[in-house]
Amino acid sequence: MNGARSATAVAHPNIALAKYWGKRAGEGNVPAVPSLSVTLAGMSTTTSVTFDETLVDDELVLGGAMAVGRPKARASELLDRVRAAAGIATRARVVSTNDFPTASGLASSASGFAALALASVRAAGLDWRADEVADLARRSSASAARSVFGGFVELDGGDGATGAARPVAAAHALDMRVLVCVTTEEAKATSSTDGMRATQATSPYWAAWLADAPQSHAAIRAALLAGDFARVGELAERSALAMHACAMAAGIVYFSPATIAALAEVRATRALGLPAYATIDAGPHLKCLVKAGDAAVVRGRLASVPGVLRILEATPGEGARVVTAEAP
Amino acid sequence: MNGARSATAVAHPNIALAKYWGKRAGEGNVPAVPSLSVTLAGMSTTTSVTFDETLVDDELVLGGAMAVGRPKARASELLDRVRAAAGIATRARVVSTNDFPTASGLASSASGFAALALASVRAAGLDWRADEVADLARRSSASAARSVFGGFVELDGGDGATGAARPVAAAHALDMRVLVCVTTEEAKATSSTDGMRATQATSPYWAAWLADAPQSHAAIRAALLAGDFARVGELAERSALAMHACAMAAGIVYFSPATIAALAEVRATRALGLPAYATIDAGPHLKCLVKAGDAAVVRGRLASVPGVLRILEATPGEGARVVTAEAP
Repeated sequence: MNGARSATAVAHPNIALAKYWGKRAGEGNVPAVPSLSVTLAGMSTTTSVTFDETLVDDELVLGGAMAVGRPKARASELLDRVRAAAGIATRARVVSTNDFPTASGLASSASGFAALALASVRAAGLDWRADEVADLARRSSASAARSVFGGFVELDGGDGATGAARPVAAAHALDMRVLVCVTTEEAKATSSTDGMRATQATSPYWAAWLADAPQSHAAIRAALLAGDFARVGELAERSALAMHACAMAAGIVYFSPATIAALAEVRATRALGLPAYATIDAGPHLKCLVKAGDAAVVRGRLASVPGVLRILEATPGEGARVVTAEAP
Repeated sequence: MNGARSATAVAHPNIALAKYWGKRAGEGNVPAVPSLSVTLAGMSTTTSVTFDETLVDDELVLGGAMAVGRPKARASELLDRVRAAAGIATRARVVSTNDFPTASGLASSASGFAALALASVRAAGLDWRADEVADLARRSSASAARSVFGGFVELDGGDGATGAARPVAAAHALDMRVLVCVTTEEAKATSSTDGMRATQATSPYWAAWLADAPQSHAAIRAALLAGDFARVGELAERSALAMHACAMAAGIVYFSPATIAALAEVRATRALGLPAYATIDAGPHLKCLVKAGDAAVVRGRLASVPGVLRILEATPGEGARVVTAEAP
């Protein structure tokens, strides 16, 4: 084994403005529709990977606790791909921590797999480009491919797509803040994977979602490149509601009472003339998109919404990066 | 003018199990999809109509207050149709009261226009059959046609339909109770008419709703006629979520925090093995469908949901009927 045997990477969650929901048929975990997100500074996953000849099995420590079952199996699948590429068989110790709630719709799997992919590749001594790291991350969690890059990022999806992620605009393209309204510290009841599967199998709106989402993605991309914050916000709220509606028609409801209360507050704020927009991923948390100059006043309003436990304020941020790498 | 000059009718709201949402193009206020409802005893509208030669204009007293604007105009439109049929020009005094919240998604327009149609027809001395009264009521509020009949009632909709209402099964066809979870005493922010218009104009799921709803209606009808309560409930919950999803994708959200809390409680109750199902009309109230024998225990659970102000317990009930009619 050449180069580093240990590496630590940091990655951030991302919030999709044009949502992705559902998988294309076939290999590679390619989304059914294209998506566009913003990578967020202010919430981080830090992941260390150490390939260690003395280990008989991979080890995964998540938030200080030894992980088993599905989380560990998913990490080992990624490590197996890295080992195959590097031509090694060495097992690895993975230690990962989030400074925000895990598995509750705050995109912890996005930042988690982006950080794991980058740290694993570097620890294995592979000299991969970011798009190759993103391809690896996507196979574990599609939205993780977007967290490999900073700023505004798109991820291909749909027939003929390869699932490639690429940056669309720099972090400063919109002078935007994201107010993450945390409504629970608990994991969500239905995982994104299970929710997508049920939606694809039984939602009467699945075909209509497949037809609408690419148009929505293209419109959001155009508004972003035009620097039109209000149009991006309006379309992002529409995309989020369309995604939740598609799932809801299959009986999958991710909203909590606080989600609805916060959505009503965002809309009431907008009715007062302040450009504030909501987006919601597969979980109960609401993320409010505001202009930087309006963040303080809107944050104050959202803080008083019943069920909003606390608010994280994020700016568009950097992609995944290696913070330390050590050879033995 | 022959016969009565004054008549009082009572009608009940109805709850759609197979939802209707949206209007077919053309005249007559015909729904875009067929629907199937249950008329509810336990909540009533009582409406008196008096044709009075001394009046220079129609008068509408709703819940003790003189109504003007749109509510009065809608009542006069119905009265105009009755006057045309009866060959009279006499203005009328209409006095209507509900014993439940008005215009908040508790189908007050259904019971209101059913009672108004029947009282007006009778006060004008017309000897109309129930289906003719239902046709009149439908032109003012489509779901009102269903409240003319008791028990389980369907209303035609879609291409080629005339908007005819007819009874499908008697009130005792299912040994069911409807627990109406009242979550506000306020009128809703978006009327059904406005919500339907926005949905038809902008929901990406409108065409899929038009395709799905007739199948949903047929399945609910078959389950009802088979006496299969659990299947009716499951399909009714699905129909309600599909309707709300179609509207939500157009930005129209009728849920309140309490709606989501009550839905979660219904689902938690079901997970315990009790057959309880949710349906939600265009407003924040949730209606829980339960077997008569389970009503007390489920009611107790729903009563503790935050935001549920009170619970009305309704049984399948009678259609609209005249309670008094007087000649001068």
